[in-house]
Amino acid sequence: MPNGKSKSKKKELVFTRENSVGLVERQFAHFDAPLKLRSGGRLDNFTLAYETYGALNEDKSNVILICHALSGDSHVAGYYSDDPNEAPGWWDDAVGPGKMFDTNRYYVICSNVIGGCRGSTGPSSPAPDGKPFGLRFPVITISDMVEAQRHLMDRFGITKLFAIAGGSMGGMQALQWAVNYPERVENVLFIASTPLSSTQNIAFNEIGRQAIYADPNWRRGDYYDHPEKPDAGLAVARMIGHITYMSEYSLEKKFGRRLQNNTELAYTFDTEFAVESYLQHQGVKFVERFDANSYLYITKALDYYDVSDGYSTIYDALRKTNANFLVVSFSSDWLYTDKQARELVDPLRRLKKNVEYQRVKASFGHDSFLVEVETMTELVGGYLDRMWKRKQRPPKKNDDKKG
Amino acid sequence: MPNGKSKSKKKELVFTRENSVGLVERQFAHFDAPLKLRSGGRLDNFTLAYETYGALNEDKSNVILICHALSGDSHVAGYYSDDPNEAPGWWDDAVGPGKMFDTNRYYVICSNVIGGCRGSTGPSSPAPDGKPFGLRFPVITISDMVEAQRHLMDRFGITKLFAIAGGSMGGMQALQWAVNYPERVENVLFIASTPLSSTQNIAFNEIGRQAIYADPNWRRGDYYDHPEKPDAGLAVARMIGHITYMSEYSLEKKFGRRLQNNTELAYTFDTEFAVESYLQHQGVKFVERFDANSYLYITKALDYYDVSDGYSTIYDALRKTNANFLVVSFSSDWLYTDKQARELVDPLRRLKKNVEYQRVKASFGHDSFLVEVETMTELVGGYLDRMWKRKQRPPKKNDDKKG
Repeated sequence: MPNGKSKSKKKELVFTRENSVGLVERQFAHFDAPLKLRSGGRLDNFTLAYETYGALNEDKSNVILICHALSGDSHVAGYYSDDPNEAPGWWDDAVGPGKMFDTNRYYVICSNVIGGCRGSTGPSSPAPDGKPFGLRFPVITISDMVEAQRHLMDRFGITKLFAIAGGSMGGMQALQWAVNYPERVENVLFIASTPLSSTQNIAFNEIGRQAIYADPNWRRGDYYDHPEKPDAGLAVARMIGHITYMSEYSLEKKFGRRLQNNTELAYTFDTEFAVESYLQHQGVKFVERFDANSYLYITKALDYYDVSDGYSTIYDALRKTNANFLVVSFSSDWLYTDKQARELVDPLRRLKKNVEYQRVKASFGHDSFLVEVETMTELVGGYLDRMWKRKQRPPKKNDDKKG
Repeated sequence: MPNGKSKSKKKELVFTRENSVGLVERQFAHFDAPLKLRSGGRLDNFTLAYETYGALNEDKSNVILICHALSGDSHVAGYYSDDPNEAPGWWDDAVGPGKMFDTNRYYVICSNVIGGCRGSTGPSSPAPDGKPFGLRFPVITISDMVEAQRHLMDRFGITKLFAIAGGSMGGMQALQWAVNYPERVENVLFIASTPLSSTQNIAFNEIGRQAIYADPNWRRGDYYDHPEKPDAGLAVARMIGHITYMSEYSLEKKFGRRLQNNTELAYTFDTEFAVESYLQHQGVKFVERFDANSYLYITKALDYYDVSDGYSTIYDALRKTNANFLVVSFSSDWLYTDKQARELVDPLRRLKKNVEYQRVKASFGHDSFLVEVETMTELVGGYLDRMWKRKQRPPKKNDDKKG
C-alpha cells in the first residue's frame, strides 16, 4: 500500500487535528466460529482488529466499510493519543466530519485483514499449540478477507452496507463483497484497483517474496523466537513495492538527480542520490511495523485475485451483483492501470449494471488515490452524497406500483 | 541488460550457425599504462577482454565498435565451440555476414567493460596485493569505460571509428565516445538508451544493490575467498532488473496467469504461476555467470551517467560532437523511454547536428532492441549502409571548393 503520509499535492483542503475524527481506539472482535477458506483449509477461530468512526444510525443503514491495502491496517483516521507528533491514520484526509467519508452522516468501519499483523489473526498469531503459526498459517485469499469481515458485520447486526470502499487491494475486497454478498452491498467504490492481478503485478510481488526468502533470518517463516528478524529482506520487498506506487514523474519531481549529502558526486558506495536515501528510509520504517510473513501471505492473496475465480467468466461473477459501482483509476498509475479498471467497467456496462467510471488525470501514480484529496473528495464524496440522497427519497408512486 | 535469448518475435529472418560468424575466440589486451578515472582515482594497469569479427581493411576505416549493456560481455556473436547446444553470443542476430552489422564489410570489435567480470579488470580481479579488489576497486563511470576502450583502439592503431553502437548502457558509451573523442567517431547508433539516468532508473538500480548488500554472504564485497557467494542477493537484483526489460504486454503474452505445475491453484508457497518460475530461473542462471560486485559497480556507473557531466549544460557537451547520430527508441520501453531518447534528440537538433530519430512501435519493452531483429536490421543496417556509401563517394567538386 502506498504510504499515506507523502502528500505531495494538497491544495486548498487542509485537514488538521481540529477537523479529524479525534481520538479513536483499536478494538478487537473474537470469533469462535471457524473461518472456512477458499483453499479448502480453515481457521478454527480468529480475531479481527477494527476501528469505527461516526455513529451507527438506528436502522443501521449508514454503514461504510473501508478495506485497506497491502500494508494498511484498521487505523484509517484519527489519533490514538494527544501526542502532537503522532501521525493520524492512513486515510485521515478521507474519513472525518465533512470529508469524503463524512462521519457526520456515515458510520465508518475498517478492520485489519485476516492474515495481517496489525491485530487480526495472521501468521504471527499463536496457533493452537501456542507457538506462532509461521508458515503453518493457511494461505488466504481476498475472498477469505471478505468472509472474515462478513463475520464482523454479522456481529454488529449489520445486514446491509450502504457502501464498501477501498483503494488498491481494498478495491478488490470491495468488489468481492458485491459478488459474494450481492444483497448486502448497495454501493461499491473501487479505486486504483483491478479485478484480477496482471502478470506484471504477480512478477513484482514474487520478487518481493524472493527478497524475503533470501534473507537467512527468515528461517522458512519460523523466526518469531529469534532475536534477528528478516528485516533486510522485508525492507527490500518494501522498496520494490514502493517504486510501483510512484510514477516516474513523482520520483523525478520529488528527487530528480539531487544528491543526498554532498554538493558533488563522491564516487563511493555511500548513498549519493536523495532517491536512494528515500527508498532506504521507506524500507527501514516499514520493518518497524510489519511482519515479513504477513507480507508473504498478503502478496499471495493479491496474486491469486481474479474476481472470476469460481465462475466460468467474469460475466458470470458480476452478473449476480446488485450494487452500484463507482470505478476510479489514475492516468499515471502503472501498478493498477486504466486498462485494468476497464476490465471491470466494460463487463459491468455490458451487463447493464449501474457503473460510473472516472479516469482521473493525475501525476502521482498509484499513490494518487491518497494524494489527490480534492479530486477524490469531489468524486467519491459527491458520488456517496448522490447515492445517499437517492436512498432517502421516498419511493415514487410508480415505484410502488412496480412493487 | 536484457537477455538476448528470449526472441519472442522473429518473423522471416532466421539465423543459424550457417550464417553466423562461426567460431570466435575471446582475446585479451593488457595495458601497463594507468587508466585515469573520472573519480580522480586510477588503475595502474588493466586488461580488456575483447572479440573481433570480420576483417579490418587496409586503411582501418571499416571499424564498428559495439558496446555492451549491464550484464553483457565481449561475446557479441558466434560460438566458442562446435557443441551444437552452445548458445551464440548475445547479439548474434545483429553481427555476421549479411546482418545489420555486416561482417562482410565491417570489422566489428566488442570489449567487456572495465569493472566487469567477463575477462576485463574489475572488482573480482587481483589487486596489487594479489587478493581480489572487492570494494577496493575504484568506482567507475561510463566515461571510464570509454577511456579503456580508447586504449584498445590505440593498440589496434585505429584512429577513427566508422561507427560506435550500443543498446541500453551500450548507447551511453557510444554517446560518450562522440563527446570525449569527437574526431574519432563518424556515426553513433544510440539504441534504447538515455543521455542521463532518470530518478526511476536510479531507484531500480539502488533496490538491486540493496538486495545484494542485504545478503550476509556479500560480506561488504569481500566474499571471493568464501565458498558461499552472495548468490541469493544477486539473483533478486537480477529479477528486479529483468522486470524492467520487459513490457507489461510481453509478460502478459508470455505467461498470463498460467500456472507452472498444476491445473488448479494449490494455495501453497510453492511456485504457482509460470511467471514466478521464469523470474526465479532468470535469477539462478544469472549468478552462474556474473559477479555481484561487478553488478554493484556497473549499476553505479549507470546511475552516475549524465552526458552533461563536466559541462554546464547538455548543449555544451554535445556542441563539440562531430558524429552523425541514429537514435532509436521503442514505444513500450519503460526503462529508457521515448521521452529520454528525445532528451538527446532535441538538443542535437537544436545544435543542427546530423541526427535521425526513429521511434519504433514495438511491444516487447526494453528487450525490443534485441528482439525486433527485422526492424533493427532495416533501420540500423540501412542507416549504416547509407553512411558507408556516402563515405565511399568521391567528394563532389562543390565539396572540394568548400574545403
